[in-house]
Amino acid sequence: MLAHRRRDALPVSLRSPAPASDDVPVSDGPGRKPSIVREDLVAAALRLTGPHRSVSTLSLREVAREAGIAPNSFYRQFHDMDELAVALIDVAGESLRGIIGDARRRAVSGRSIVRGSLEAFMARLRADDKLLHVLLREGTVGSDAFKRAVDRQLHFFEEELRADLIRIAAAQGLGFHRPDLVSRAITRLVFALGGTALDSPPERDAALVEELAQMIRMLLRGAHALSRDSAGNRMPPPVD
Amino acid sequence: MLAHRRRDALPVSLRSPAPASDDVPVSDGPGRKPSIVREDLVAAALRLTGPHRSVSTLSLREVAREAGIAPNSFYRQFHDMDELAVALIDVAGESLRGIIGDARRRAVSGRSIVRGSLEAFMARLRADDKLLHVLLREGTVGSDAFKRAVDRQLHFFEEELRADLIRIAAAQGLGFHRPDLVSRAITRLVFALGGTALDSPPERDAALVEELAQMIRMLLRGAHALSRDSAGNRMPPPVD
Repeated sequence: MLAHRRRDALPVSLRSPAPASDDVPVSDGPGRKPSIVREDLVAAALRLTGPHRSVSTLSLREVAREAGIAPNSFYRQFHDMDELAVALIDVAGESLRGIIGDARRRAVSGRSIVRGSLEAFMARLRADDKLLHVLLREGTVGSDAFKRAVDRQLHFFEEELRADLIRIAAAQGLGFHRPDLVSRAITRLVFALGGTALDSPPERDAALVEELAQMIRMLLRGAHALSRDSAGNRMPPPVD
Repeated sequence: MLAHRRRDALPVSLRSPAPASDDVPVSDGPGRKPSIVREDLVAAALRLTGPHRSVSTLSLREVAREAGIAPNSFYRQFHDMDELAVALIDVAGESLRGIIGDARRRAVSGRSIVRGSLEAFMARLRADDKLLHVLLREGTVGSDAFKRAVDRQLHFFEEELRADLIRIAAAQGLGFHRPDLVSRAITRLVFALGGTALDSPPERDAALVEELAQMIRMLLRGAHALSRDSAGNRMPPPVD
């Protein structure tokens, strides 16, 4: 179970409603825990997910059981499983944006940013980051609210990546065609192909990183070339 | 229900075992149909799938009911729902490869191949091609056998695309860096972003086609540029 954190340090989506009385634990019945926070239910749901078990197939009853509370107590934190699933995705987004931070720390020079970012991503994947697994696997199935939550988190990630790409290109004095589309393409490619890593042996990771690095190089190179085209050195595009 | 086709015109995965006696329909009980072919069960399963209902959540009982047969008769065609799901994906692959054919017919010149292919893809999507919807939505969840079947179909599609890309580049006298990676990147991007079209209004399709066309242009342009690099005009890659 995640350690309790100060309430105002939690993202809004995970803050439990303020208790009616200060710090008086309410027993849910013989052998059950006192009232818990949303974070505990999200953690319980995450423990139950896996390669053949998506969040959308979890029942309220089993999540409550995993969290050690009575089903009725679930309703103190969430209206239903859909609301929990959305909260889970919001927490997954934090994990996701942590990848950008990891990547910046790993990059020692402009030349290693792509590879460093990919390695940061694979490291999170292999560190059994279940939040990331859910994002990768389940973005396309589930309720509308769930899918919108996934898109929202992906969008935040793409925005941070776009800002980084612009910053790097500017530092190199290079133009860049449609950085928003480049960052979206990179994000979706890494997610789609990175997701396959979950179903492949870890020995395959290095080859996958190499393939993704090549694809990203091609995208970046093409974006720079198209930017030069717009600036006046127009070549007819080979295929359009 | 799909019209019956000659048995040897069906893909192997959909051929029913040869009947024990020639053309003697076996009744499954009062009010139920005579024995059916695998195709009918696959069609029944497809009718039940939707935006919030993945193949892996369907039960044998409901598929049999939808097909109008007794549950026990299901076993004459498939060992279990997993085997049906794999057969469904194999049929979806045919639909998928039909997109390449559509795209070739739509392309009137080298300049319109990318756009023509994307429009062929979106047309299939909007024609309520449920097979395509299943491939787009469900490739990442389900049994290992199911996911392997999805990968296999995607791989066939990527191979056809790769052959087309090489052919087109050769016709233009252009080199091409790693056509296998380019075709995989294009396929995965179109699938990942095309899949979002299912959850967006059709009015958004044209904008999505435009964005995908730009991403593909960047990939192709970058592939040509990297090919020139290898041929001797080496520029330092802007970011690596």
